[in-house]
Amino acid sequence: MNVRPQTLEDHLEHIRQLIRQDRAQELAQALEQLSTGELPWVLDHLDHEEQERLLRLIPSEQGGRILESVSEEQASELLDHLAAQEAAALMDHITSDEQADLLGRMSARRAAEVLRHMDPREAADAQRLAQYAPDTAGGLMISEYLAYPAHWSAALVLEDLRRNRAEYAKYDVQYTYVVDEQDRLVGVLRLRDLVLADPDCPVQELMISDPVCVTTDMPLRELRELFHQHPFLGIPVVDEQGRLVGVVRHEDVEEALEQAAQRTFMKFTGILGGEELRRMPLRVRSLRRILLLSTNLMMDLMAAGVIAAFESTLSQLVALAVFLPIISDMGGNAGFQAVAVSMRELALGLIRPADWLRVAWKEVQVGVINGVVLGVLVGTIGWMWKGNPALGVIVALALATNTVVAVVLGGTVPLLLRRVKVDPALASGPILTTLTDMCGFFLILWMASQFLLRGT
Amino acid sequence: MNVRPQTLEDHLEHIRQLIRQDRAQELAQALEQLSTGELPWVLDHLDHEEQERLLRLIPSEQGGRILESVSEEQASELLDHLAAQEAAALMDHITSDEQADLLGRMSARRAAEVLRHMDPREAADAQRLAQYAPDTAGGLMISEYLAYPAHWSAALVLEDLRRNRAEYAKYDVQYTYVVDEQDRLVGVLRLRDLVLADPDCPVQELMISDPVCVTTDMPLRELRELFHQHPFLGIPVVDEQGRLVGVVRHEDVEEALEQAAQRTFMKFTGILGGEELRRMPLRVRSLRRILLLSTNLMMDLMAAGVIAAFESTLSQLVALAVFLPIISDMGGNAGFQAVAVSMRELALGLIRPADWLRVAWKEVQVGVINGVVLGVLVGTIGWMWKGNPALGVIVALALATNTVVAVVLGGTVPLLLRRVKVDPALASGPILTTLTDMCGFFLILWMASQFLLRGT
Repeated sequence: MNVRPQTLEDHLEHIRQLIRQDRAQELAQALEQLSTGELPWVLDHLDHEEQERLLRLIPSEQGGRILESVSEEQASELLDHLAAQEAAALMDHITSDEQADLLGRMSARRAAEVLRHMDPREAADAQRLAQYAPDTAGGLMISEYLAYPAHWSAALVLEDLRRNRAEYAKYDVQYTYVVDEQDRLVGVLRLRDLVLADPDCPVQELMISDPVCVTTDMPLRELRELFHQHPFLGIPVVDEQGRLVGVVRHEDVEEALEQAAQRTFMKFTGILGGEELRRMPLRVRSLRRILLLSTNLMMDLMAAGVIAAFESTLSQLVALAVFLPIISDMGGNAGFQAVAVSMRELALGLIRPADWLRVAWKEVQVGVINGVVLGVLVGTIGWMWKGNPALGVIVALALATNTVVAVVLGGTVPLLLRRVKVDPALASGPILTTLTDMCGFFLILWMASQFLLRGT
Repeated sequence: MNVRPQTLEDHLEHIRQLIRQDRAQELAQALEQLSTGELPWVLDHLDHEEQERLLRLIPSEQGGRILESVSEEQASELLDHLAAQEAAALMDHITSDEQADLLGRMSARRAAEVLRHMDPREAADAQRLAQYAPDTAGGLMISEYLAYPAHWSAALVLEDLRRNRAEYAKYDVQYTYVVDEQDRLVGVLRLRDLVLADPDCPVQELMISDPVCVTTDMPLRELRELFHQHPFLGIPVVDEQGRLVGVVRHEDVEEALEQAAQRTFMKFTGILGGEELRRMPLRVRSLRRILLLSTNLMMDLMAAGVIAAFESTLSQLVALAVFLPIISDMGGNAGFQAVAVSMRELALGLIRPADWLRVAWKEVQVGVINGVVLGVLVGTIGWMWKGNPALGVIVALALATNTVVAVVLGGTVPLLLRRVKVDPALASGPILTTLTDMCGFFLILWMASQFLLRGT
């Protein structure tokens, strides 16, 4: 029984068995044995009841570590099915920024219930952090930091560090902060300066004065730049009065950036809110998806209206119908490439909404080259298929022109959306495809009606 | 002249002027004054000659800091136009992992030239790191760490730390490593344990033995899990012989994850290699985009072949042509949502290729609900538009069925691609749209030919 199971499926089966038989100690060991990438998979493959029993059987400290090692979505899912008291016991063992994030995902009532059962000090910290917007210094900071009054001596500080060693073990103590009587940040103290100093020296003479610090409302993007400029592991966060309220760590900033990039991708493909796991209830999953699909459908119908208006043209030359989906798809694809580049450049701070004309010009150049290449390709095929050179020319012209329109729109729409404070990830896609479809359908059908079918 | 310019455009103009007039000191100051988010924009708006002169005018240390604060793409762009010697001077002032990344972006000849002009020690480090694959512990680690022999005394180590204080300033020294005579990692030494110890005590008695460490080939995803499990700032990296070769920092792992997410998004929208900035040469931008567009075109033509096969059906009921792009677009949209969820769950380690059947079943449920809703919507419109209930029913059935097919394919294709080691971000889109287009076009046209036009 102590042999390590061979495959991940065996592992899962073994863990299921231990849960069923309430073998708490062996279960805790089996979970520790799981390699770093395996834990999320195993947890996801247990049903709700098994998850619940598992979290009840293992020590709450290990449960806390599990919550911290999996993604926030999964952690929140795991907590959902526990009683408030059990959830609170796990929450007591994770860092304050994660506490705040997980509380933010609960209903107000559930959060209040969990907070009531948490350690009062942990609960107060978590509640304080939960009031800040997620992607700001306030929302990202942790409250596990050390601060000492400016008049304390080096010896006094060292004595405190030594005495509370066990408690401070979970803190990153290479820096401690120095505050005045009003808790305002006045300096940063490096551990190495502290230990090499004269014991009687007050810390205000050892500290680095006027340290780099940020206010609670600094947005994620600016934090990124700040950490790229300075090789700090953490930066102190102050409120409007200059009082030290937390520390934002470089690793948490980078992690938040990764999550933002993932959400962007999900929103771009049409998952409302930028988040879905297949464990979520069916109605949540359906609803989040259909809201965007039905918006898309309305916009598709507008584009289809252009085709309907040219019904008589189409009935004279049904071959045109073969090219309509191609025009639509190629316009969408070419435009999406430009959208992606604009969103990336926006994220990197290389362009701002006012740069739209410059972006449009850069896109026109790519659009003309690629439009001509694609147009010639499809035009040749159209010509050969029906032996009709005029059909080829019209298809080629429509595709080439539509490619230019698509890349210019694709490049500039995210900038315009940013200017009017709409999330480009969410709205660029539907706007782009509708406009390029309408333009492309009109171009090919109108040209056909004017130049191809005039004689008939 | 010393008044801070008002707008970012004024800033840019001011900096342009300082460059033209070779006012090095004022230029360095003006750049320092730029807020964290402004620097990338200003640099991107200078032309190549101005960028070149700017980097020549400011101290190379400041230049190095600038390279580290902007994105890797932009840093590489900035270096491209400098002479090898000038590039080398800047490279000497950045951390070894960034050196390796930037060298990896140069041609082999250019990299060799730059290395020749770099500080020999820096060059050796960078070259050593450049041999590892980018998204592994080897590719992410830095060589700025401190290691001491196990038999050294605490006093000896502290003396070395004190003596080389200036040089070690750029190191994160809250941890130092302990190695044996063969440079094999045997322990980790915390600074606080060192300073609180008896000076004569050998470090092997103070260190934490058997420390967590990783081999150079550990992939990014496993590093992420490892850092989530342990609250470390950095983890030592060893080679196959167990020799200490570097340290991988939590912040660098999170940053690499963010870049990977960004690249995924770019690849998904069809930018080959996952990277484009509008500063890149036109031919590079055109080429990277058209390679994917022309693949898409070939696949679109396959789908169009289905329509062409039903030309006579279409000529009898041209109204069908109006619904073809809708069927195509809705199938693509519904499928992309499922692709995004699968890619997210793959990234989080929640699913593996063997789970495809489970994923398919979860998708069928969402697909049926959303397919029926959308089908009824479009079907009703089709019925009312032409007063033809049979047309409405056929459109509804085709759209509903195609939605189910699209989400099942969208959910499972990324898993199958992962199993055959093809990047799901790159290939899922074209495969999905082609298959759903073919299926959707066939469904509506075949049903129309069988049930709608039979009597005519």
